[in-house]
Amino acid sequence: MYRHIKELQFTAKPEKPDALFAAKFQEILGGQFGEMTVMMQYMFQGFNCRVPGKYKDMIMDIGTEEIGHVEMLSTMLARLLEGAPSEVTEHAVATNPSLAAVIGGMNPQHAIVAGGGPVPRDSAGVPWNAGYIVASGNMLTDFRSNAAAEGQSRLMTSRIYNMTDDSGVKEMLKFNLARDTFHQQQWLLGIEQLIADGFSDLIEDSNSEDEDQVQNHTFWSFSEGSQAGEGRWAQGQTLVGGQDIIYQAEPVLLTDDTGLLPPPDPKLFATYDGSQGMGKPGDAAGARLQGAQNVVNKVKDALS
Amino acid sequence: MYRHIKELQFTAKPEKPDALFAAKFQEILGGQFGEMTVMMQYMFQGFNCRVPGKYKDMIMDIGTEEIGHVEMLSTMLARLLEGAPSEVTEHAVATNPSLAAVIGGMNPQHAIVAGGGPVPRDSAGVPWNAGYIVASGNMLTDFRSNAAAEGQSRLMTSRIYNMTDDSGVKEMLKFNLARDTFHQQQWLLGIEQLIADGFSDLIEDSNSEDEDQVQNHTFWSFSEGSQAGEGRWAQGQTLVGGQDIIYQAEPVLLTDDTGLLPPPDPKLFATYDGSQGMGKPGDAAGARLQGAQNVVNKVKDALS
Amino acid sequence: MYRHIKELQFTAKPEKPDALFAAKFQEILGGQFGEMTVMMQYMFQGFNCRVPGKYKDMIMDIGTEEIGHVEMLSTMLARLLEGAPSEVTEHAVATNPSLAAVIGGMNPQHAIVAGGGPVPRDSAGVPWNAGYIVASGNMLTDFRSNAAAEGQSRLMTSRIYNMTDDSGVKEMLKFNLARDTFHQQQWLLGIEQLIADGFSDLIEDSNSEDEDQVQNHTFWSFSEGSQAGEGRWAQGQTLVGGQDIIYQAEPVLLTDDTGLLPPPDPKLFATYDGSQGMGKPGDAAGARLQGAQNVVNKVKDALS
Amino acid sequence: MYRHIKELQFTAKPEKPDALFAAKFQEILGGQFGEMTVMMQYMFQGFNCRVPGKYKDMIMDIGTEEIGHVEMLSTMLARLLEGAPSEVTEHAVATNPSLAAVIGGMNPQHAIVAGGGPVPRDSAGVPWNAGYIVASGNMLTDFRSNAAAEGQSRLMTSRIYNMTDDSGVKEMLKFNLARDTFHQQQWLLGIEQLIADGFSDLIEDSNSEDEDQVQNHTFWSFSEGSQAGEGRWAQGQTLVGGQDIIYQAEPVLLTDDTGLLPPPDPKLFATYDGSQGMGKPGDAAGARLQGAQNVVNKVKDALS
Amino acid sequence: MYRHIKELQFTAKPEKPDALFAAKFQEILGGQFGEMTVMMQYMFQGFNCRVPGKYKDMIMDIGTEEIGHVEMLSTMLARLLEGAPSEVTEHAVATNPSLAAVIGGMNPQHAIVAGGGPVPRDSAGVPWNAGYIVASGNMLTDFRSNAAAEGQSRLMTSRIYNMTDDSGVKEMLKFNLARDTFHQQQWLLGIEQLIADGFSDLIEDSNSEDEDQVQNHTFWSFSEGSQAGEGRWAQGQTLVGGQDIIYQAEPVLLTDDTGLLPPPDPKLFATYDGSQGMGKPGDAAGARLQGAQNVVNKVKDALS
Amino acid sequence: MYRHIKELQFTAKPEKPDALFAAKFQEILGGQFGEMTVMMQYMFQGFNCRVPGKYKDMIMDIGTEEIGHVEMLSTMLARLLEGAPSEVTEHAVATNPSLAAVIGGMNPQHAIVAGGGPVPRDSAGVPWNAGYIVASGNMLTDFRSNAAAEGQSRLMTSRIYNMTDDSGVKEMLKFNLARDTFHQQQWLLGIEQLIADGFSDLIEDSNSEDEDQVQNHTFWSFSEGSQAGEGRWAQGQTLVGGQDIIYQAEPVLLTDDTGLLPPPDPKLFATYDGSQGMGKPGDAAGARLQGAQNVVNKVKDALS
Repeated sequence: MYRHIKELQFTAKPEKPDALFAAKFQEILGGQFGEMTVMMQYMFQGFNCRVPGKYKDMIMDIGTEEIGHVEMLSTMLARLLEGAPSEVTEHAVATNPSLAAVIGGMNPQHAIVAGGGPVPRDSAGVPWNAGYIVASGNMLTDFRSNAAAEGQSRLMTSRIYNMTDDSGVKEMLKFNLARDTFHQQQWLLGIEQLIADGFSDLIEDSNSEDEDQVQNHTFWSFSEGSQAGEGRWAQGQTLVGGQDIIYQAEPVLLTDDTGLLPPPDPKLFATYDGSQGMGKPGDAAGARLQGAQNVVNKVKDALS
Repeated sequence: MYRHIKELQFTAKPEKPDALFAAKFQEILGGQFGEMTVMMQYMFQGFNCRVPGKYKDMIMDIGTEEIGHVEMLSTMLARLLEGAPSEVTEHAVATNPSLAAVIGGMNPQHAIVAGGGPVPRDSAGVPWNAGYIVASGNMLTDFRSNAAAEGQSRLMTSRIYNMTDDSGVKEMLKFNLARDTFHQQQWLLGIEQLIADGFSDLIEDSNSEDEDQVQNHTFWSFSEGSQAGEGRWAQGQTLVGGQDIIYQAEPVLLTDDTGLLPPPDPKLFATYDGSQGMGKPGDAAGARLQGAQNVVNKVKDALS
Repeated sequence: MYRHIKELQFTAKPEKPDALFAAKFQEILGGQFGEMTVMMQYMFQGFNCRVPGKYKDMIMDIGTEEIGHVEMLSTMLARLLEGAPSEVTEHAVATNPSLAAVIGGMNPQHAIVAGGGPVPRDSAGVPWNAGYIVASGNMLTDFRSNAAAEGQSRLMTSRIYNMTDDSGVKEMLKFNLARDTFHQQQWLLGIEQLIADGFSDLIEDSNSEDEDQVQNHTFWSFSEGSQAGEGRWAQGQTLVGGQDIIYQAEPVLLTDDTGLLPPPDPKLFATYDGSQGMGKPGDAAGARLQGAQNVVNKVKDALS
Repeated sequence: MYRHIKELQFTAKPEKPDALFAAKFQEILGGQFGEMTVMMQYMFQGFNCRVPGKYKDMIMDIGTEEIGHVEMLSTMLARLLEGAPSEVTEHAVATNPSLAAVIGGMNPQHAIVAGGGPVPRDSAGVPWNAGYIVASGNMLTDFRSNAAAEGQSRLMTSRIYNMTDDSGVKEMLKFNLARDTFHQQQWLLGIEQLIADGFSDLIEDSNSEDEDQVQNHTFWSFSEGSQAGEGRWAQGQTLVGGQDIIYQAEPVLLTDDTGLLPPPDPKLFATYDGSQGMGKPGDAAGARLQGAQNVVNKVKDALS
Repeated sequence: MYRHIKELQFTAKPEKPDALFAAKFQEILGGQFGEMTVMMQYMFQGFNCRVPGKYKDMIMDIGTEEIGHVEMLSTMLARLLEGAPSEVTEHAVATNPSLAAVIGGMNPQHAIVAGGGPVPRDSAGVPWNAGYIVASGNMLTDFRSNAAAEGQSRLMTSRIYNMTDDSGVKEMLKFNLARDTFHQQQWLLGIEQLIADGFSDLIEDSNSEDEDQVQNHTFWSFSEGSQAGEGRWAQGQTLVGGQDIIYQAEPVLLTDDTGLLPPPDPKLFATYDGSQGMGKPGDAAGARLQGAQNVVNKVKDALS
Repeated sequence: MYRHIKELQFTAKPEKPDALFAAKFQEILGGQFGEMTVMMQYMFQGFNCRVPGKYKDMIMDIGTEEIGHVEMLSTMLARLLEGAPSEVTEHAVATNPSLAAVIGGMNPQHAIVAGGGPVPRDSAGVPWNAGYIVASGNMLTDFRSNAAAEGQSRLMTSRIYNMTDDSGVKEMLKFNLARDTFHQQQWLLGIEQLIADGFSDLIEDSNSEDEDQVQNHTFWSFSEGSQAGEGRWAQGQTLVGGQDIIYQAEPVLLTDDTGLLPPPDPKLFATYDGSQGMGKPGDAAGARLQGAQNVVNKVKDALS
């Protein structure tokens, strides 16, 4: 359950409105790595966390902070949009030609759809969607995704920071930059803690005993003249397992499989030359000989 | 420019078809962290790389490998779909009731849309989209995103590995698991190399001199009774800068800003009680007094 | 700024897991009218509210409650997914044929992507997106949208309520049904309050003095034999203005405009027969004669 | 079955082309609340209507009208785009600097993709999608959604009306404003008719006998210092049932459920500390003990 | 303007309900090549047609027919969904195990969202979106897209036709198959007519005088051992121009451009080694030397 | 498996940067008919091709070429973005008012998200998605879709070609135009080859023996005064079958089916007047009488 406190986490007051800058600013609210993303990502990770105590509490704490960041950025946007030109374009340009860039570059939905407020969209006007977030239940992979998201988020915030000289905006962004600095580290330290607590190795390695024991430490190059072999990733020891990395300068053929497909079900009308024999017709008989038999056999095996 | 070699990178032959498993298998082809994602992500990062030599070559090498992974998985899918039931449901169930799960759970688009082949979609049937990928031009943030993507990809591959006992499928997935193991490390080693070459710190810290120097090492808790303070992320030194992390057990008020918004432009018909004075009408005069004046002033400053 | 309380708003404990029901249950979490929608909609309306006091506080209160609903439903989903079949299908079916429906109908992403937790998607597996929400700045239109959303949400909750007999699930849904009952009324009462406070009429009628004064109270029928004229919407007085509704049984021609388009810019290669004269070529001359002149003239008017 | 009449419902002739305005105008064609939305929403509601006669006919009549509105707006757009600059930017700006705003703000797809015609997208260039519409089969909830959609649509039309002084455009928009005025009332009157005919109460209340009989008339506040209690929504009688609304100034704990999750299936590799016992392995045995047993038990109950 | 006729274009009565088949059937209503696609595509092409008379009328005629097809398919879906299981799963399976496939495979949104009616989505449950359609203003390219859409639509209809033996469904699909047969030809004949009327060549060849006069008749192979040279596409004369097709068995190097990028703006923090000199800082000076100068120069050229 | 060659297929060097043109140029990289579309479409068609030899090789050859086109266009974009204004808007406009159009029209994500590089999006900023592509397994329908895609792609390339006078850009686009010219013909010649090899007729006609033998050669007009009958599509012989096309000037009633729907399941709360009798309640009894019985009967038939 959540509560709301009326004060923002940090002041969100621009010196002056700037509708063109507001259009760009949307990226860090509703973009792929905007505050909506980290807020929803941490909330879902928190709800899906199976380790109560410091882990779940930490995720919930930062998730709750991020809701407040969405609030701060939304407030800043509404204030940047004060007096955004909603009138007839030509009048505005006539009295002040410098407005042309603003009028051309402002987001029309700020006026038409949101009445001078923020929209849950990125700087290109694309609505935020949940395909941006992940909550896998595995804290190593999720913390790594979180550290990456905070890094990308900070980079974009930093680029936007340089696109204004409004001291009010810059003051708030200094706060956001700092939080992204800390949050990047928070997740990296979270990985350290996971390892210290015995929950994880440095990398995701479930079912590692089954994986190909050569390909897990081999770099393949696919370009003639590639200099990729000069990097640390192609020489020295692996980070886990301590094996010597193999540098394979040219791709080798591990198989003669050229992807020849089986004959198609005739009822699907896939183009076919008959070279693999006739596809089994898609009636019960055909299903029995193919997919069905597959199931039947395994059921038998399981029962015996 | 690219070339194609007819052989797959690894054999993609299931023992037997399995349409239900094929539906799940789509996740690692066309899902958020499927092979289409890493292929497109690395290609765009490679095209956008500004450091020729080992860095660009490495990114292009792995990007090129991933195109081949899309090919392998697509081939596996087409073979898993051999004889997938396209006929009248009841006939199939009548001859083999065990088919009910298959018929219920298979992806109908495998038959209707793709004629027995793969679709560029995830296991829920949602089309792949480019909102999954990032190529920021900054190798630290991108390599961290890549390491995260490989970790998530490996986790999902590993889960799917346990959902079949088809030896042909498992054989190929052992190869994929191993590649994800290596690729996770490849990107982590890439970060080591970036630091060694002086291109980056451990975290994204552009404009770091401007950021709030307290908030960049402070953990905020937002829940009564939170145990988050017990974790490494809330105590000890930061990873960069070597400051002692501050644990703030309760949110403090840094501002009295409660997000009161300016009066709206009357022409936008946003509901308003007049308490902030009248909004400036959205004609040229209004714009001049607000947004326009903002521009004008700055132009003057710049010229003087 | 927000705070988190560890307890849920209401108990979210199913009697037993039910993976098939969990797939359906996603609709009221991540669907068009799920809790993610009302949470984000009210948050954005709250951030964009320009009437401090009871209005803004009410919107923020309900928005904050809805975050807790997302939490409750997410928790319920994770518990419904306990022991969801992640193993080889045939084994499960072999030991219990009744599982076929579950295996066919469960959402594979619950296991593969979320590791047994909820996903931010609807019951068809489509990710939530911000195109579902609105925050227009106008409280009448937004409150009406909110009342509609609560009604649709309650209807879907009610349908899902009938799809289980798990007493734990039903207990929680009784709470949710009640909240949707109250929230529907809350927004309808909000409209009453807006009218009482002089902020609004019963319908959105900005610029009403300009609108066509006949078409604002005329019902057009477009089907031969339509019985639409028998309804209240086609007779009696309008709700605002008190005019007698006109029932127009057949569409009448108000114009002879058949949509003939102007000649295309030749550089756009739109197919054209020349019947409207030649399109102006898209060079500066052409632009000047058309779009440019348009701007120029208006600029002149504005300056004179 | 439908027929087409060559004449538009209303004249769609701008005085002069205006490519910048055309970009904004797209919102009311292809936006969340544009004419494509109401057209498709009413069509699907009409096709799904189970009450023949005045209800179905009314829905079909208005749905058919809206197809004609899509036609009108599309025609207006193609005419607004006449002579839109498709040439080299610098030439245009050189001969008329006032064009800068137009060139910056016009939608490039109008020229590149549609050859000077409309696109089925909103003013941010996002394609229309069917996630905007609803046809639930329940006329109360749908009519309320329709009234809301007409209100939002009218608001956006009204905002756009103020963004031009082209008398041709304004003339048509006066017609559209009037239709939205009537259509809002048409759906509200539809609700009156539903109630009069005994099809519905004022709110969606299916399964109302089961819902929590306290929470259906309680307002919860979640902010310290909230003034929400001053509104009609927090005092007086409910609109249905006539109960006195309870104002709960502070959230109360109804449960001690803090969302602790069950142990995960080990094969899903969700991070877990073992505190809830071991997760059941995801083989047939595990499934039988959990999800499967759930089904089996209920089947037994149903048969006994 | 449109009118509605109460009768469907063709009877849409299944013998019996079939909820599993209904889920598949959605593909030809709301899929990439479903009736919603052709309806919206032809409507937009018609509204954007600049050749009045037989062309525009033909497009409008078929577009109007397709609205009726959406109506027919929607009606069929609602009837197929009669009695679709909305109750507790286990009860249904207990009394009839054959229902397992139906319950597993039916679309839960048919019950939860649409109350037993159609949804504007494909067979995977993905909402229809306007990214599926095109209306370019060029009738050759559009007619070719239309012929392709009708072919794909017919193929999917034909596959679905084989997935049922319900005589009522099949009867209607025979009508749809026939219409797709005719409509494919209608668009191909439309291309013949365009050529006969002098509006078009066989292929899109605007600006053809400018294109590379070798590459417009050269086939490039990119695989060792490719047999692509054996096809008609790699030998004989081109369809337009009558040139002998060149078969280039191996890719040749036309350039030594390896994609080396210019130095980045330092304010964008793209990783860079300095090898191309320093990027121009993103202040006015930098812009003037680069992008700005570009504009200035061209403006000068245009004015001189 | 794929390999990479460091050289581009063609030089991608603009004379000068041009950020505004770069925004438009995105259409032919990441738009509906951009190079990402044909690349992914041909790759999936190639992976799903069941005719080895010249067909599969041809598809793979062109698919591999298109990867290189994505590379060329991406490189061009990064170079066009050199020195794109990332600084404070007003400074730039102050020193060069001509920049207003550039600043207004450039894509802010080019700077904020991609650090001066390309984005996988169209010219409106919408991310590429796999709903644009098709790989049906049927080469006739796919080749026709491919020919259409190449035509649309060429048209958009040609329009963009006219929007710049940068000789470097134009040089590369001349290459692209030529490839699109050849590729259109390649797919048309592919259809010729399919027919010559006996794989296909001119149109998709699977199950043609079942289709309605009148409706497959009848043109329906739906507008009074339509001149559609004057076109080749409404007279003369069909392209296949050689039947005389029937022109039906007015729609005729083939059925008296007005779409009356069956009674709804009461548990779905669809509005209903009882005129069709009571809907079967959604318990096991209801299902048995309706959907279930349907299955049971057919199972019996199949077994007897």
